[in-house]
Amino acid sequence: MKKVAVIMGSDSDFPVVKSAITELKAFGIPFEAHVMSAHRTPAIASEFAASAAENGFGVIICAAGMAAHLAGVIAGHTTLPVIGIPMKSAALEGMDALLATVMMPPGVPVATVGIGGAANAALLAAQILAVSEPELAEKLKARKQSMIEGVQKKDAALQEQLAAL
Amino acid sequence: MKKVAVIMGSDSDFPVVKSAITELKAFGIPFEAHVMSAHRTPAIASEFAASAAENGFGVIICAAGMAAHLAGVIAGHTTLPVIGIPMKSAALEGMDALLATVMMPPGVPVATVGIGGAANAALLAAQILAVSEPELAEKLKARKQSMIEGVQKKDAALQEQLAAL
Amino acid sequence: MKKVAVIMGSDSDFPVVKSAITELKAFGIPFEAHVMSAHRTPAIASEFAASAAENGFGVIICAAGMAAHLAGVIAGHTTLPVIGIPMKSAALEGMDALLATVMMPPGVPVATVGIGGAANAALLAAQILAVSEPELAEKLKARKQSMIEGVQKKDAALQEQLAAL
Amino acid sequence: MKKVAVIMGSDSDFPVVKSAITELKAFGIPFEAHVMSAHRTPAIASEFAASAAENGFGVIICAAGMAAHLAGVIAGHTTLPVIGIPMKSAALEGMDALLATVMMPPGVPVATVGIGGAANAALLAAQILAVSEPELAEKLKARKQSMIEGVQKKDAALQEQLAAL
Amino acid sequence: MKKVAVIMGSDSDFPVVKSAITELKAFGIPFEAHVMSAHRTPAIASEFAASAAENGFGVIICAAGMAAHLAGVIAGHTTLPVIGIPMKSAALEGMDALLATVMMPPGVPVATVGIGGAANAALLAAQILAVSEPELAEKLKARKQSMIEGVQKKDAALQEQLAAL
Amino acid sequence: MKKVAVIMGSDSDFPVVKSAITELKAFGIPFEAHVMSAHRTPAIASEFAASAAENGFGVIICAAGMAAHLAGVIAGHTTLPVIGIPMKSAALEGMDALLATVMMPPGVPVATVGIGGAANAALLAAQILAVSEPELAEKLKARKQSMIEGVQKKDAALQEQLAAL
Amino acid sequence: MKKVAVIMGSDSDFPVVKSAITELKAFGIPFEAHVMSAHRTPAIASEFAASAAENGFGVIICAAGMAAHLAGVIAGHTTLPVIGIPMKSAALEGMDALLATVMMPPGVPVATVGIGGAANAALLAAQILAVSEPELAEKLKARKQSMIEGVQKKDAALQEQLAAL
Amino acid sequence: MKKVAVIMGSDSDFPVVKSAITELKAFGIPFEAHVMSAHRTPAIASEFAASAAENGFGVIICAAGMAAHLAGVIAGHTTLPVIGIPMKSAALEGMDALLATVMMPPGVPVATVGIGGAANAALLAAQILAVSEPELAEKLKARKQSMIEGVQKKDAALQEQLAAL
Repeated sequence: MKKVAVIMGSDSDFPVVKSAITELKAFGIPFEAHVMSAHRTPAIASEFAASAAENGFGVIICAAGMAAHLAGVIAGHTTLPVIGIPMKSAALEGMDALLATVMMPPGVPVATVGIGGAANAALLAAQILAVSEPELAEKLKARKQSMIEGVQKKDAALQEQLAAL
Repeated sequence: MKKVAVIMGSDSDFPVVKSAITELKAFGIPFEAHVMSAHRTPAIASEFAASAAENGFGVIICAAGMAAHLAGVIAGHTTLPVIGIPMKSAALEGMDALLATVMMPPGVPVATVGIGGAANAALLAAQILAVSEPELAEKLKARKQSMIEGVQKKDAALQEQLAAL
Repeated sequence: MKKVAVIMGSDSDFPVVKSAITELKAFGIPFEAHVMSAHRTPAIASEFAASAAENGFGVIICAAGMAAHLAGVIAGHTTLPVIGIPMKSAALEGMDALLATVMMPPGVPVATVGIGGAANAALLAAQILAVSEPELAEKLKARKQSMIEGVQKKDAALQEQLAAL
Repeated sequence: MKKVAVIMGSDSDFPVVKSAITELKAFGIPFEAHVMSAHRTPAIASEFAASAAENGFGVIICAAGMAAHLAGVIAGHTTLPVIGIPMKSAALEGMDALLATVMMPPGVPVATVGIGGAANAALLAAQILAVSEPELAEKLKARKQSMIEGVQKKDAALQEQLAAL
Repeated sequence: MKKVAVIMGSDSDFPVVKSAITELKAFGIPFEAHVMSAHRTPAIASEFAASAAENGFGVIICAAGMAAHLAGVIAGHTTLPVIGIPMKSAALEGMDALLATVMMPPGVPVATVGIGGAANAALLAAQILAVSEPELAEKLKARKQSMIEGVQKKDAALQEQLAAL
Repeated sequence: MKKVAVIMGSDSDFPVVKSAITELKAFGIPFEAHVMSAHRTPAIASEFAASAAENGFGVIICAAGMAAHLAGVIAGHTTLPVIGIPMKSAALEGMDALLATVMMPPGVPVATVGIGGAANAALLAAQILAVSEPELAEKLKARKQSMIEGVQKKDAALQEQLAAL
Repeated sequence: MKKVAVIMGSDSDFPVVKSAITELKAFGIPFEAHVMSAHRTPAIASEFAASAAENGFGVIICAAGMAAHLAGVIAGHTTLPVIGIPMKSAALEGMDALLATVMMPPGVPVATVGIGGAANAALLAAQILAVSEPELAEKLKARKQSMIEGVQKKDAALQEQLAAL
Repeated sequence: MKKVAVIMGSDSDFPVVKSAITELKAFGIPFEAHVMSAHRTPAIASEFAASAAENGFGVIICAAGMAAHLAGVIAGHTTLPVIGIPMKSAALEGMDALLATVMMPPGVPVATVGIGGAANAALLAAQILAVSEPELAEKLKARKQSMIEGVQKKDAALQEQLAAL
């Protein structure tokens, strides 16, 4: 299976990005994670993106906050699907990162998930790889089923809470 | 190659969504396009999503405006990657559709592109399929190269304009 | 009297939604409350909505955050009045849930209350049922009167505070 | 059947509000429509709201723009369900009217529909009356069915357009 | 001198509104303060506004949050200048109250100050009364001078802090 | 009676600001109008504000767009009440001018009206002067009464329109 | 004197960016203008930025819309001052470009001007070069003086318009 | 070398503005810092700006919150480059200060950095001075290199964290 790259603009993003890594591990998807910055280490980021396909990556996940250019810059150097996670920072509630990630010009898409949506980014990467990996597709179906059961359990617990009111 | 589904919530979305279809044709990607509504034809939409994988689809693109639930509802019924195009409508400059498409809860991602970003949605679908279709990957690289040349031509044209000022 | 359904997208919504239940109890309105998700348990939610009228429900209250599709999805499967409570979550101050709940396309309305407005959702449900339940209408009038007295008491308390300044 | 009141803050709202009246007529729901202002004719508006229930009204629809207080002021004087239509005006894309209509304090709900959502306001009024009017409920179900057929026709038309591309 | 009325929609606004009262006291301006609600005690609020001029008030300050209608409703019942203080509440950072207070339709102005700007509301009331009260005008000039000195002292303190760095 | 100053940041604001002048004339309030800029002619603006009181002005109205500093700068140089009209310009729907006008720091209030609210600015100026001008207060009451009649006429016209539907 | 580079992300930005060029010419500042894209021609943009200082540039102006990464990417490859012009595009009123340009992370500033503020970008570039070019500083002072005269002429013209009312 | 002025609207801005001072010291750039207010001490601020160039300043940094006029007012009185730092305050997440700082009218630019971006303001000032100070330009390049190394160290640390998962 192709690898997923998980890139974050700053190590302070790791507590949120960790959920992506947990998901990838749970699905048994090979990955690498790196701190790289579109603005502080542009050459490293460009080089990573440009060689990602030949280095065995199938999808690249990028997490960044504020004027979040990381996903867009990576997408400028590769034709692999790039997933962007806008990160909330000290001001503006993540709106800056959301717009800076999603509003890409024609020709260079970034597959954007919700603000702080690291787990969803990993699931989306899994869905992308699963297009040609039937086994992974089965795992995703199982996961969907277990979500249903999870909600049902919570509903059952709510009934008990209500009875006790 | 797997097919791409292009679903729009209303036929009034077609003038924008058309760019996605033009791109898919240019890449030789098989597709189907449909008008379906998360709110007005929920049973049809759910059924389509639930059987999309077995019907040969690899990616589903959904365009919707306002409280744009289409992509999310489709994503609730499939484990295929779902791409959401938020559509600008009469008020709020597309911000409503953007937030209603991208801010998905954990477990059900939607790969969101920019407001009205139909061409990018098709390119993203192509990138997703290309993960396991080397020929399509080559076409995407060629496209990236032709974008470079397009920008260079525009720069050359600008130099002439400037000289004439 | 017809029952009110109170549906929440996640059990984490319960601390806020509880106010709706307290109000319904205070008015003696029969109700059921459930955890159900538009995205994680779409089949359960659709089935619940589609059979709600014949199961004795008169109004459905839905609380959800982020790309809050729950009320819209429920409204797609019933002609009962559906009340939406947009929930504030980790980012964007509830604006995402508000727009995703209220900006419904023509044909499928959601009666939206303010962000986190669970008590108001229950009051609105009571007002709806009271259109054909004169006794409930009387209770609502009494409630309105007691609100007036509550404000008057607070004004009296303020006068004491001011005198002590 | 109880009557629906349709109140607009200015006669300039009529071109949008007209859709509500068209819907009410289509459902055979008796109604009255008035221009009344929370700010310019507050006494008339208060008096109308306070006596609406005894004058045979079951639901009050209020359309207003900018600092849209009309629905809230009407709701302050009645325990009937009040539906608010936020109107887009010259600036701010309707966001001002949306927030001024929907963010009501505890105790006085306004059932808010989308910006300019006049048709949905009428449908919601119909749904509210239909809770105790089985015949109207049947009409709403028929309407829902005809919406499905409308979307299906549009999908069929799209197939022809696509074939012609 | 005419009195200033300070009205707040809820006693929970008092901790912020208190700054207005402190200012009015400092300027020796007679005032009354009340809890009154545009939605919960509309008759009391209307009556207060309608008789304010003849009761010796010259200016009315209104503080309210969320769909803040209080200032607008008061302004609908008087021709006295009405000052609105938008209050920040649990969601939306005060934007709802700001727009609901300031975006008044032609004919019924509300003199709006910043979110939570209670001290400024009192100063504005003082400025309004001072148009015909030369002694109060002198106090306002003295206050302006003391603000200058206050800033100068802070600048001097900063120089010491910088020297110590 | 004291004069009202009407200052606009640019002559391009005049088509909107004109409504203020029409109102002032209708009320027989003496006024002067000027183009002055907080950024382009700061010395002229400061000098005008600093000497406004002694030059017979009672209120200063300031209209400006974008980073609208005009009202704030004027308010920094006078203790007269300053009314700010935020003007909508090419981007951002007037939100920039609204926030730049209304969010003044403690000590220097600006009485802000709605975006483009020139007529309301003049009415507010009239209300301020009327605190000590009983004749003007009577005119304002008459104006309020004529607004009521205006709305009633529009309601009557609506009834004819409805009858003709 | 060092040169100013004026870079735009698309030739469709030229009608707005032209004002920057007009200003630079008026000040006699040498410049080059280019179409270059952070996403479509990243290698060209990086190379341009990295060698700009040694190629005689002193300031780089970048105009881009949507997820406007151009200024940030250029700033990542140079230590010259980079000025960003956020461009308004089809949705969101330029807010996306503003946030994507201005909210840069620590270490890589972009000197952002207002949305569409091309003339101001050129003036800022002139101010930057003028720090070490006394002659240019004199021209800027003359320009400031002529702005004052321009406003004064507009004020005189307004007086005539008012007299004619 | 010319001096940098660091002006803040309130001493409560100092904890954030301190980062600018730390940076200036690290680069060995002479500076002065002051508390001055566009609204509370306008004469002092104007005088400072008007004489800044002849007093040896090359760049002026201004930090202010809310209706942040400080940078614009300073820019109105000088032709030196003025850098604006919008400060986040109690409401609106800094959006008010951002718009009030950046949306300057043609003719009077403010070089705006991100909300709370004090360190970047100092770096931008350094970049501006470095246009004619080759030694400072070398320091900026060294700083850029050390940022690269900083990111690389964080990436190395991340690898260890991942290995330990």
